[in-house]
Amino acid sequence: MKIAIIGATGMAGSALYKESTLRGHDVTAIVRDKEKAVSLFGSGAKVIDKDIFDLTKSDLEDFEVIVNAFATAPAKAYLHLDLAAKLIGFFRETKSPRLFFILGAASLLDENGKLYLDTLKTVPDAASWISIPTEAYKTLNFLRGIENVNWVGVSPSVTFIAGEATVPLLGTDSLLTSGKGESIVTSGTMAVAILDEIEKPQFIRTRFTVCNQ
Amino acid sequence: MKIAIIGATGMAGSALYKESTLRGHDVTAIVRDKEKAVSLFGSGAKVIDKDIFDLTKSDLEDFEVIVNAFATAPAKAYLHLDLAAKLIGFFRETKSPRLFFILGAASLLDENGKLYLDTLKTVPDAASWISIPTEAYKTLNFLRGIENVNWVGVSPSVTFIAGEATVPLLGTDSLLTSGKGESIVTSGTMAVAILDEIEKPQFIRTRFTVCNQ
Repeated sequence: MKIAIIGATGMAGSALYKESTLRGHDVTAIVRDKEKAVSLFGSGAKVIDKDIFDLTKSDLEDFEVIVNAFATAPAKAYLHLDLAAKLIGFFRETKSPRLFFILGAASLLDENGKLYLDTLKTVPDAASWISIPTEAYKTLNFLRGIENVNWVGVSPSVTFIAGEATVPLLGTDSLLTSGKGESIVTSGTMAVAILDEIEKPQFIRTRFTVCNQ
Repeated sequence: MKIAIIGATGMAGSALYKESTLRGHDVTAIVRDKEKAVSLFGSGAKVIDKDIFDLTKSDLEDFEVIVNAFATAPAKAYLHLDLAAKLIGFFRETKSPRLFFILGAASLLDENGKLYLDTLKTVPDAASWISIPTEAYKTLNFLRGIENVNWVGVSPSVTFIAGEATVPLLGTDSLLTSGKGESIVTSGTMAVAILDEIEKPQFIRTRFTVCNQ
């Protein structure tokens, strides 16, 4: 399939890029830094190097899938919501491209049904980074109201780190834990789960979550 | 003040245009149909005739106030949310322009604390127009998460009709009724309330509602 990855040089994005090419998809990396993309993916990689807010509908409309793996600093966390709104605005009243949004774990519920964001807010240094999960949660709530765009949200587990793929454990709105009781997902496992969902859609206009088994 | 009115030829917008000029402000009408604007406001009127989704930040950033009185057909009601997201995206991390959004009455609470939108959904022909109040409610929820833009929401009363100004009765999140027990606001009264709020801001990043006394 024809897949674009926004933020392809990041931790999530680069794992997605690799998994997509492994599976034979036609992948384009959308990045701010073309040199970094070429150094990661080789000189033959398809790259659009453009600020995401300068992307136009015509840059994107020929893709079948767009995965938004954009990441930013806490001071600019609101750009997550703005980018989601921009992508949604481009593709109102369409079925393609299908838009994937990586949304963070804070919008998941813990075993007591408590929003994990509320727990994160109580962490001592939360003020310095809480904008990121807060804006991701707003983005999910924004997406939940969108009925005429083919979107899907993906939440990692509590710990989301670079690492090889394992077999993904999938859920919907609750934090998952592995057999060892850890809520952890590697970038490789996330990529496998997202590519599985790209190839066989199960979650339509909703959010799913991924954990290492 | 330098004020732009999006949708200035509509019922709410034209009353706003008139009240703004009466009070001596420097007003620009942003409209799809320039001829209609000229016929309503005269050939000396300042007009930007542009599709709202083609407006750029530079078209708008010199205004001190932008009032969004955009209206559309039910099938395109999602454009309310998209336009709000676009305007918010332009003016992140700014204090000016101040953005006014006319949001409908459905997001207000009735005397029993019930969301008026939920009552509207039970009206027999609701399916043909419920998208408008639904999207306005989503827009308010979207705005409530925006902390770094100078926005304000304005809800009319249950009945919002063209008519002369009376003394406005103001509230916050509950449906208001006049001394006669009617929840009604005229376009003239709305314009007075909005111009009052433009000149003496009381409601910062929140929503207020207006009723004829």
